[in-house]
Amino acid sequence: MADVYTLGLDYGTNSVRCLVVRCVDGAEISSAVVDYPSGKQGILLDAKDHNLARQHPGDYLFGLEKSVKLALVAAKKSKGFDAKKVIGIGVDTTGSSPIPVDAKNVPLALQKKYAKNLAAQCWLWKDHTSWREAAKITELAAQHRRQFIAKCGNTYSSEWFWSKLWRCLAVSPQVFDAAYSWVELSDWVPSVLAGVTDPKLVKRGVCAAGHKALYAEDWGGLPDKEFLTLLDPKLAALRDRLFEKAYDATEPAGALTADWAKKLGLPAGIPIAIGEFDVHYGAIGCGVKEGTLVKIIGTSTCDCGVVSADKVVPDIKGICGIVKGAILPGFYGIEAGQSAVGDIFKWWVEGVCEGDGALHKKLAAEVVKQKPGQSGLLALDWNNGNRTILVDPMLSGLLLGQTLHTTKGEIYRALIEATAFGARAIIERIKEYGVPIDRIVCAGGIARKDAMLMQIYADVTGCTMLVTTSNQACALGSAVSAAVLAGAHKDFPTAQAKMTSLEKKQYKPDPARQKAYNELYRLYRQVHDAFGGLTKTADLSRVMKDLLALKETQAK
Amino acid sequence: MADVYTLGLDYGTNSVRCLVVRCVDGAEISSAVVDYPSGKQGILLDAKDHNLARQHPGDYLFGLEKSVKLALVAAKKSKGFDAKKVIGIGVDTTGSSPIPVDAKNVPLALQKKYAKNLAAQCWLWKDHTSWREAAKITELAAQHRRQFIAKCGNTYSSEWFWSKLWRCLAVSPQVFDAAYSWVELSDWVPSVLAGVTDPKLVKRGVCAAGHKALYAEDWGGLPDKEFLTLLDPKLAALRDRLFEKAYDATEPAGALTADWAKKLGLPAGIPIAIGEFDVHYGAIGCGVKEGTLVKIIGTSTCDCGVVSADKVVPDIKGICGIVKGAILPGFYGIEAGQSAVGDIFKWWVEGVCEGDGALHKKLAAEVVKQKPGQSGLLALDWNNGNRTILVDPMLSGLLLGQTLHTTKGEIYRALIEATAFGARAIIERIKEYGVPIDRIVCAGGIARKDAMLMQIYADVTGCTMLVTTSNQACALGSAVSAAVLAGAHKDFPTAQAKMTSLEKKQYKPDPARQKAYNELYRLYRQVHDAFGGLTKTADLSRVMKDLLALKETQAK
Repeated sequence: MADVYTLGLDYGTNSVRCLVVRCVDGAEISSAVVDYPSGKQGILLDAKDHNLARQHPGDYLFGLEKSVKLALVAAKKSKGFDAKKVIGIGVDTTGSSPIPVDAKNVPLALQKKYAKNLAAQCWLWKDHTSWREAAKITELAAQHRRQFIAKCGNTYSSEWFWSKLWRCLAVSPQVFDAAYSWVELSDWVPSVLAGVTDPKLVKRGVCAAGHKALYAEDWGGLPDKEFLTLLDPKLAALRDRLFEKAYDATEPAGALTADWAKKLGLPAGIPIAIGEFDVHYGAIGCGVKEGTLVKIIGTSTCDCGVVSADKVVPDIKGICGIVKGAILPGFYGIEAGQSAVGDIFKWWVEGVCEGDGALHKKLAAEVVKQKPGQSGLLALDWNNGNRTILVDPMLSGLLLGQTLHTTKGEIYRALIEATAFGARAIIERIKEYGVPIDRIVCAGGIARKDAMLMQIYADVTGCTMLVTTSNQACALGSAVSAAVLAGAHKDFPTAQAKMTSLEKKQYKPDPARQKAYNELYRLYRQVHDAFGGLTKTADLSRVMKDLLALKETQAK
Repeated sequence: MADVYTLGLDYGTNSVRCLVVRCVDGAEISSAVVDYPSGKQGILLDAKDHNLARQHPGDYLFGLEKSVKLALVAAKKSKGFDAKKVIGIGVDTTGSSPIPVDAKNVPLALQKKYAKNLAAQCWLWKDHTSWREAAKITELAAQHRRQFIAKCGNTYSSEWFWSKLWRCLAVSPQVFDAAYSWVELSDWVPSVLAGVTDPKLVKRGVCAAGHKALYAEDWGGLPDKEFLTLLDPKLAALRDRLFEKAYDATEPAGALTADWAKKLGLPAGIPIAIGEFDVHYGAIGCGVKEGTLVKIIGTSTCDCGVVSADKVVPDIKGICGIVKGAILPGFYGIEAGQSAVGDIFKWWVEGVCEGDGALHKKLAAEVVKQKPGQSGLLALDWNNGNRTILVDPMLSGLLLGQTLHTTKGEIYRALIEATAFGARAIIERIKEYGVPIDRIVCAGGIARKDAMLMQIYADVTGCTMLVTTSNQACALGSAVSAAVLAGAHKDFPTAQAKMTSLEKKQYKPDPARQKAYNELYRLYRQVHDAFGGLTKTADLSRVMKDLLALKETQAK
């Protein structure tokens, strides 16, 4: 066991990463990142509709082959490593990112006829074009199948499976008709490695199925045909061409084919772990267990927790999903999230201010010493809608408190604070329903690099922020899953204890800053609740005055 | 008459201008602008308090001498001009900009002891440090002297005379005690030219007195001592050292002293018109008459109209001032305004985006063809508070509707639209009270140069926008007043007909754009009324959704 390795493949929004991990201690032997070649930073856009975000499935294959090969080449520099010692592969991806495929499990977009057709691509998680469909599904479920949406905050999202499929049917019926089936990216990549050429035989992970496709054993799998017919009879007909059963991480997705083994330079037949979404495997890579909230802070943020499957988990209003086996086998996975976090800072610094990484640092340096409220600014973190706790993509960003002296650095900080307030709203919502959070572990590039943000998060939430040591927690979690599956460890807790760890540096809340942020959070919630529709009789007449008063106090 | 001239001196926020005008036809023979040398662009600031804005009185004397001399040198190149043919001087300034002076009418700030003391400087119109005092005056007047504030929208402003004096007493009692009296900049400059060395003998214009110092003949001039004692006994005591009577433009401020005549190269003894605020003389320079609304669009915007003194003018809620003789003798002057207009664009382009004049043009070019609502953005124009119709400096800017694709050009346009919505709120408020507006004449650098803004104003307000031909309407109005006073024309209407004119280019509203802007204005008012405190039970749950829906429609 001292000398075996697993690969973790992490399909992100702009690139794919392959991580080579030593099973005995989680040492990250090597890693390679490959950018998706198509579109703008890997995303196919539509200038006329900012809601649209697609990806070319060919990019996934390109990235798969290239990242694995590069990672293996790099790993060979490590003493004792040999590709023959790789005993399993785990895959995590963004999601819900469904791909229309033909009867042979080949994406339509890989056919010449559909290569340029936006509807035939992978519908990336952050595609919000199907907001009408999502609202309609929410409405129909509320009327006819309350249980379907009870576990996803009573609101079905435009980022999810059925909304996207239905939208495809509305805008491009020819693509919908041409698709034999649809496969989540997180299931499709493992199925490719395992050589599955029939969509019905693709091993579907309960993570994607449960969170996004309304799958649950309680009601016999996917939504029943009667319900789907209410959406459209074609969706009901499609049900037969999707899947009957979805699996947790105890079940392999398959074994590596000889063809792919040769292409990648790996042993044929090694097991491929069931696919999960990036953050779910990321939670495992951060050592998630009962009482731990894992925050993966990146372009967006995902929050994950687990509760033993023996317990009764309440339906938490506004929480994206509560699904058995979605993260760890034997536990309910609870998932929440913020639709844009790093993406908002990137928009501000790179989009509006036309700067680069250096400007991020310059702005942070300008405002790192500002006291909470000193700028007088308050923002909502809704540039990409609100996933939790409002589950509403039809929201937008808001900034208030500007004077004629407001600086771009102050706005940068206000946007960071806005995402911290959004994080606090999630934590408070989960706790309100009696799910304990006694530890927060953060991962993702932002958590590891941005000390100012992490301190703000601690001060805003009043919680100590711990940080994982891994720079690629999602890929590491995939590798952990593969290691358990391949038998390198007896179970997940053992594997997590051996293969994951935390930084010594912890971010602890400062009482004075926490107090000022409590006041700002009160104002944030007033604006949040008014524009988010939680109150229809808002009194906002004091918001600007209270901000100005706090500003004056903090400037002293 | 064909061969006589007057000077118009216009004291702006950052510089002073001298304009030489031919009385027979208003020809602008020459002009010179001198920047104030002190502070940041002429303004003394306090990094710890964005509300503070002061000016050094020495800058006014420096600018006076230099601008007149430069203008006369330039005028001499014009055939037939001779400085001996100058028959009068008119002066307009920003306001309320009160200056603490000693018993000889010398500003305290010109004494070495107070030269660097911020409280001893001129308290510039846009200084908002006295917001507490303004609120208290509003409250006391509402309880004890309703009539005092009935003509200024029932709200006394932090930009005005008594608020500033009281604030000075609060923060720097030694300066307050050292001041024998306080003189408005618009009265002080004429008094200097006329050699007045006793503050009690300074001819005070009813424009400044009536709009800002609560002066009205109806209640015997300035507020009574009993009321002022409610503020502070020291303010009541000061009343005796201010003035008894204020005058309209039929009364001269004095005659040019031999000393100043020599210094400036002008004939001694020529009459000096009573000082008015810049926009009031600007209204005259734009040909104001009953039914005309004049908009002077610059760093801030002032709106002026007149109603015959024979008529009964209602107390228009939220309108800054209704004062007899404030603009034209024999008419009530109505004044409204927006605290920041050009200043907001400047803040965005130069402050946040760190660009220059070229960037203003670049951004405008990017968005000039956008349809109303196409960006999905909506802003409030409150970066410097709201003068009309809320009369509340304790407000701040707001921008909403941002996505991850929003551009700096789109924000630039949204800020222009915000000021247009603010302009529409003013026009609607004045009309609501039965004061007719059948013609809008615009002046100021922005009105003359920014065709995109002017078209947006026409589309948002549904009114045709006319533009004056003069690039310096305020200075021209001062020169018109001096011309009437010196007898070059028999009265103001005659002088205005001869000396002022309009551009042929008119901006007419486009019905389709007007319709979309009606929808945006509806949303603007929802947000405006909620944050401005006009409603305490706001339903803002549809604002972002309606903006997104309009955005989708307009993108087609």
